[in-house]
Formats: sequence, C-alpha cells, structure tokens
Amino acid sequence: MASARSPLAPDAFPALPAIDGVRLGASACGIRYRERTDLMLALFDPGTTVAGVLTRSLTASAAVHWCRDALAGGVARALVVNSGNANAFTGSAGADAMRRTVAVAARLANCAGSEVFVSSTGVIGEPLPVEKIEQALPALAKTLAPDAWPRAAEAIMTTDTFAKGGTRRCEIAGRPVQLVGIAKGSGMIAPDMATMLSYIATDAALPTELLQRLLSLAVDKSFNAITVDSDTSTSDTVLLFATGKVTTPELSGISDRRLVGFRRALGALCQDLAQQIVRDGEGASKLVTVRVSGATSRPAAKRIAMSIANSPLVKTAIAGSDPNWGRIVMAIGKAGEKAERDALRIAIGNFPITEGGTVRADYDESLVAEYMKGDEIDIAVDVGVGRGHATVWTCDLTHGYIEINADYRS
Amino acid sequence: MASARSPLAPDAFPALPAIDGVRLGASACGIRYRERTDLMLALFDPGTTVAGVLTRSLTASAAVHWCRDALAGGVARALVVNSGNANAFTGSAGADAMRRTVAVAARLANCAGSEVFVSSTGVIGEPLPVEKIEQALPALAKTLAPDAWPRAAEAIMTTDTFAKGGTRRCEIAGRPVQLVGIAKGSGMIAPDMATMLSYIATDAALPTELLQRLLSLAVDKSFNAITVDSDTSTSDTVLLFATGKVTTPELSGISDRRLVGFRRALGALCQDLAQQIVRDGEGASKLVTVRVSGATSRPAAKRIAMSIANSPLVKTAIAGSDPNWGRIVMAIGKAGEKAERDALRIAIGNFPITEGGTVRADYDESLVAEYMKGDEIDIAVDVGVGRGHATVWTCDLTHGYIEINADYRS
Repeated sequence: MASARSPLAPDAFPALPAIDGVRLGASACGIRYRERTDLMLALFDPGTTVAGVLTRSLTASAAVHWCRDALAGGVARALVVNSGNANAFTGSAGADAMRRTVAVAARLANCAGSEVFVSSTGVIGEPLPVEKIEQALPALAKTLAPDAWPRAAEAIMTTDTFAKGGTRRCEIAGRPVQLVGIAKGSGMIAPDMATMLSYIATDAALPTELLQRLLSLAVDKSFNAITVDSDTSTSDTVLLFATGKVTTPELSGISDRRLVGFRRALGALCQDLAQQIVRDGEGASKLVTVRVSGATSRPAAKRIAMSIANSPLVKTAIAGSDPNWGRIVMAIGKAGEKAERDALRIAIGNFPITEGGTVRADYDESLVAEYMKGDEIDIAVDVGVGRGHATVWTCDLTHGYIEINADYRS
Repeated sequence: MASARSPLAPDAFPALPAIDGVRLGASACGIRYRERTDLMLALFDPGTTVAGVLTRSLTASAAVHWCRDALAGGVARALVVNSGNANAFTGSAGADAMRRTVAVAARLANCAGSEVFVSSTGVIGEPLPVEKIEQALPALAKTLAPDAWPRAAEAIMTTDTFAKGGTRRCEIAGRPVQLVGIAKGSGMIAPDMATMLSYIATDAALPTELLQRLLSLAVDKSFNAITVDSDTSTSDTVLLFATGKVTTPELSGISDRRLVGFRRALGALCQDLAQQIVRDGEGASKLVTVRVSGATSRPAAKRIAMSIANSPLVKTAIAGSDPNWGRIVMAIGKAGEKAERDALRIAIGNFPITEGGTVRADYDESLVAEYMKGDEIDIAVDVGVGRGHATVWTCDLTHGYIEINADYRS
C-alpha cells in the first residue's frame, strides 16, 4: 500500500548527529516488502544502560515480553527491529523465531541474550521468516555506522508515509549531552494494527533506575498523550539507551537540579517524535492539540482530554472544519470525570465559545470556522472544578482513514 | 440532511396495537424542520407507573435532570418529546423552556408537574423556541388516539432514516399483557450528537420499584449493549410506562416465576428496538453481533465485547469484508480485562480461526471473506479464563459515517 506523503509531514528528515557509543544500519532482507529496507540493527558500546515503556496490551507480542524481561537487567548491547511482520499471535513458533534473532544478535555483539532488545512490526498472525533475518544480520553488522539514523528510521516504517526523527542538545552538570531519536507511527499494514515504536539514544551517563524514571515521565506527556484511533497495538515499544560516554558527577536522583536541562530535552524530543506520529495518522489532514485544565487531578484532566481526542464525532467535525463545540461538551460528559457543566469554558483557537453553561453572547461562529480551515487546531477546555491539567494530541477522522483501513488485503 | 433509508432497515414499520390507558399523537410545530412532525405528546390514565434509565453523561441536559427527579415520584401522566432542538447546554433559559413545557402538559393532563416527562433531541446550544411548543400542545392534545404509534415514532426522529417500533405479548399470572415501544437512534443533526430515545408502554400493573428493576435488567442487555461510535449523548433516555389496566395478583418481586414471560418479552422488545438503532447507525452497511465468553465476569465480558465493537480498526475491517482477526486480538488486549492469549478462541460466523495462541491449521480465509460480504456478521470470542459472557451489537465504520458527520452544518 503506497500512500502519498502526509500533508502534515515536515519538509525533510532532520540532520541527526552521531551518538558516541552507537553504531547502526539497515538492510533489505525481503521479509514482506520488495525494494525497501526492513531490518535495522544497532550495537551499543559496553556500559550502555537502557529504559523502556512497553504496551499495556494483555495480548502483547513475544518481543514485548522479551523486552520487559531484558529491561530488568538494565543493560543493552544490541537492538534488532524488523518491519513487515509483527511476529504477534504466532504461538510457540513465534517465540522460537524471536529467540533465534536474539541469539544471532548476541553473537554479533558478543553479549548475553538479555542485553539484546527486539521489536517486530507489520502483519500479524503469519509466521516470521526468521531465517532471512538470521542470514542478513551478520552482513548487516559489518556495515554499521554512527550516522545511519535516516536508514534506520526508514527500515522500521510500515505504511508510515515519512521517516520520523529528531534530536536535542542539553547539558548535565555543565557537560554537553546529545539525544537522538527515531520513531514509526500508526501507519497500517493490513492485517496489522497501529504500532508505535521509538528508539532514543543519548551519550549521557545515567544509571538504569534514573533513566527509567526520566523516560516514564517523558512518555506520559508524549507517546502516551497521543491518539489516532484509540486502538492499542500489541507491540508498542519505546526504548531509551544511554551510552555513558559523557561522564558526569553522581546525580542525586530525578529531582537533581543538574538534570533539569536533560529532562526538558528528553521531554521535547519525545513530544517532537510523538507529534510526528500523529502527523502521519491514517488519513490525517489536521493536527489537533487538546488542552484540558480545571480538572480534579492530572489523570482526570488526561482522561477528559483523551475522551475528546478519541471521539469520532469530534474528529469528524474537525475534518469538516466545523466548530462543533456541542460534541466537545458531549465528550467531556462521557469521560466520567468530574466537570461543572455551568462552569465549562471551551475555546477553539483563540476564540472563547462557552460560559455559564451556554454559548457566549459574543460568539461568532464564522470566525472559528475560518480558523478551523487551517491544519493545526487547538482546543482548550476548562472544566471548572480543580487545578489538574493535561495536553494530548490527535488528528482528524477523514475518508482517508476509512480508505486505508477498510481496503481488503491484496 | 435527507439520507437514504438504511440498507439494514426492516421492510416496513410494524403494526402496533393500542395499549389500554395510553393516547398519543404528533404535530408539526416548526422547531427546526419543515414539512415534518417534530412534537409528540402521550397522555397516560391515572395509575400509570413509570421507570427509566437515563444517560450517565455528566453534562446531561435539563430534561434528563428533570426526568431523573420525576422518576423518584414513580407516577406518569404525560410525556412530551420534541425533535429539532436538544435544549442542551442552553443555560438557565433552557431550564426555563423545559419548565414551561412541563407546565402546559401538566395543565392538559390535569396532573402535577412531577408526573410529566420530557425529552428534547436535535441541535444543541441553540435556544429552544418553546413558545412554538406551548402553542402547539393544546391543539395536539385534542387529536390524541390509542393507535398513533407510527406518528409518534416519526415525530421523535432526527436524522434517523426509518421510524423504529416494536411490540411483544406475554402473560402475567395467566392474564394477557401487551408491550409496545418506539425509539429513535443515532442519526445526527449537526451540531448534535448521537441521541438514543425510547419509550415503551405496557398495560400490565407493576409497582414502580419492580418496574424499575425489570427495565434496568432489560436495558443492560439491549440499549446499554449497543454502540455506533462509542459516543454518549447528553440526552439518552429510556422510559417504561405501565398503565395497570391488566390487574394481576400481587407479585413477590423480580424473581417471581409469574414474571418470567414479561421479563422475556420486555428483554426481546428492548433488544429489537436497540438493534433497530444499530441498523440505522450513521453509514452502517452491516449489523455486527459480538459475543464474548470465558471472561472472569459478565462486566468483564461486556468490556471486552465493547472494546471490539468500538474499535475503529475492527469496524473498518468489517466495512471492507476483511476477516482481520488480528485486529480482534488487539481489541481484546486493550480492553484491560483478563484474557489468556494462548487460549483465545476467535470465530467469525461459523468459522473458528484461532487456537493455542495462533491461527488454526485448517483456517481458510477465503471462506470467511465470502461470509463477511453478507450484511449480518457474528464475531464470537472465548477468552479462556472464566465463565462470564455478554453480547453486544454494533455496525461497521464506513465512508457514510464520515460523510454524515464531517459535513459542515448548512
């Protein structure tokens, strides 16, 4: 399925610097696609710590279970990702295929299997042709380079319409640190489901436990604050590798002031990558930011924001550039979190719409309709009962989504 | 917005008998539509008990709050429903309009305001032209008849493409009892949201508390077991009126064996009406039944079934007649209820597909694809961990849904 580049895509893939301690590359081993790469390998120098956030799906793939176990070790030397086949719901044969991949990578990296991380994305329920991966990995390992981020970002794509990457710089205790990340988004391969994968590397030296707390915080406000269609993949994976090349004095913990810059940089990079995923949502024609304030807590605010962001009625209204605030009221009401109908304040763009349980006297729908013709739409809601706030991102629901997802597999 | 009759609509509106103690009618008072009825009035003889199930939305309309309070009295003499305007999110003016409607109906029925039930459905956030209702009601009250069910069912439609009604007969303690119901479904009027309304009348004599238990049980397996797009209206209302004309010996409670027939009849009528609503889902081309068994409890089974029935990926696959069982696995996984991946059994129609955590060796996709070209699709899932089971109904997600809901208000 060759789709046109999303109208919300950035102009070009960004220039990404090498991260000291990371070498990577990609090759075409013919798992499913023709004439494109479908296998990526990254090797990390000894001393690399790792943190991860994995899908909460109760039908998670074998690779996700493997990564969850490997994260307990906290050390990474290799990452193998294939596209074209998710190796999900493939029974014991799938678990065998995954272990064979790990074994080859461990030999190439000269490390323990528990230091190898794997992901598979693509068609589900079909046997993974693991022999193609076993054959391709040794040759691929000889071609690795520190600057191969674009090739890696392309190899993990499924029906993504553009490769996704980003970088940030910061300082820890006065020493310059770099972060680079790549991601794949919610493009589909029938009969697959939306899968989100992201891999981030930094040259900072951060112990595993601290790295995990930093990543969890950042993911909560980025990858876990986006939605395309409310569906959750069996393979969603975000991994953060820290090679430790930039040594710093010992840090006291997550609240150490010397980490403020890194936290901001990691948060911004995760949001950048997460928004690129939404920009490549199936059929997306508009990027939508939903900000909720005045809720009883942050989780309550996020649930209300997600209720708005996942509502098919809200999303179709946005597709039609329709300032249909009544549907936003509905989505707030169904979220199940406390809200004060007569204190609700809803704004679209810079246009306040409701007040005191009804529409404002000065509301001019034509102005909002004009604003909504743009391709970035802001919705702000204050539910009037507390101080909890949260922001999430989504896209509109268009004919393109139906076309991509209702097409019979060919 | 004039839409073609749903391809899933029944051939004709059913013949509905009069219910002793109920007179009803409809008129066109010009709230929003031209050349169609938009106001219905029903009057009930003294002694009519009432039960109701109302939207759980926290931004419910003034009429819903009114009905909730009136249900505490448990007695009904009048029902007024208008279409074309939901009188929702209309502030204190909306509450005034609702009370003025109640006052006129109470005068016509010669009853207390707390014996009047009201619903409004249609555009939200716009003032209800209540004076049109006040003017129309007295004339309408003079035209009421026991057999005007078709007119009543038409008057409560918004963008429904067909009027919905049904009837059942049964016996209580050997005496024949009738039930008649009408409903409106999830057709939209921009900028409105899906609103489900249903009114059922019976000539049985059932005390309020018992009536409420009977209705709550029936609604759980019917109106609360359907989904078109996962959105919840601020106005959803189901009311059951019992005129008491068929007197019976005192019943001992919900478990009284003499109520078995009535429970079955009420349950079947509610399912009939609920399925008619799904058959008129926006853009629906297929009616989908999702049966989940083997869950830890009935609520768990229902959450899993609803996760499948609400998944845009599952619904678009069905629209494309694609036996995409991988998306069903995904929807089970994201439901958050216990399921055993390697014990999952998924069947579409009479075709078992998965077993032992993978696809069955004898699975022939072409047979299932052929089955899925039909317009009634059954999905059966056993999650392999317990004995809880539940059935829900939904429709597919098609281009028609986007067309209806992304159109700008004209």
